[in-house]
Amino acid sequence: MSTAHDCIFCKIINGEIPSAKVYEDEEVFAFLDISQVTKGHTLIIPKKHVENIYETTEEVASNLFARVPKIANAIKKAYNPVGINILNNNGTAAGQSVFHIHIHLIPRYDGTDGFDAKWITHNDDYSTSDLADIAQKIATGI
Amino acid sequence: MSTAHDCIFCKIINGEIPSAKVYEDEEVFAFLDISQVTKGHTLIIPKKHVENIYETTEEVASNLFARVPKIANAIKKAYNPVGINILNNNGTAAGQSVFHIHIHLIPRYDGTDGFDAKWITHNDDYSTSDLADIAQKIATGI
Ligand SMILES: [Zn+2]
Ligand SMILES: [Zn+2]
Repeated sequence: MSTAHDCIFCKIINGEIPSAKVYEDEEVFAFLDISQVTKGHTLIIPKKHVENIYETTEEVASNLFARVPKIANAIKKAYNPVGINILNNNGTAAGQSVFHIHIHLIPRYDGTDGFDAKWITHNDDYSTSDLADIAQKIATGI
Repeated sequence: MSTAHDCIFCKIINGEIPSAKVYEDEEVFAFLDISQVTKGHTLIIPKKHVENIYETTEEVASNLFARVPKIANAIKKAYNPVGINILNNNGTAAGQSVFHIHIHLIPRYDGTDGFDAKWITHNDDYSTSDLADIAQKIATGI
């Protein structure tokens, strides 16, 4: 498959490119992100090449996330972080740089930390009626 | 259940507290985050009260994430964002403020945006051997 051929994560799955493997089964593959934003930073990916969340089937999404609790617990057991962020970026503007869907597990530690979220709330910008309109607009597309 | 009684998300699920509902089925409930970090910011939660990813069973994780693609696509259809971040925070230090597991869907827009990630890479801090040791330490706990 040319898609697989051009995709660094497909090459990691099939062993063409080495990785620090954490877990593997029929459906998913997990390995360390070489950027180690924090120590133990792990990626979980489906073996099936899918670009992003929009293209992911229910079945692939289901199998992918089913493995997250046990890997999160293994990270906790190994490094006892104070928290863990689980993140999936879709689109260049959202920080996606490899276009094979991947879930970041980012353990958090006290003190200096490679990850944080800018988080600007807008509670006062939307009335109850505004929120109902937004929810309705999304709901009609499901 | 006292857990349900004390949990704002359990109250939202059972209708004691109103919400801008986006989606509901037997397993999950989705509604707008009133903070609307970005427009269309949606939360997906399991109906079963679970505190965080560590306590989530494979089945609950699986059912929860299975619904993400269709809701992400509905947000895309409604607002055509340039990207979408999907985020689950576990632990106060990681930004969790309600202790009923929830997945944030945060559509991203050009220009001013309420969300961004601090993302400090550490590629040069770890040798291949260091990465192998970390992966092994995590893998043994799975
Ligand atoms: Zn791929
Ligand atoms: Zn609850």
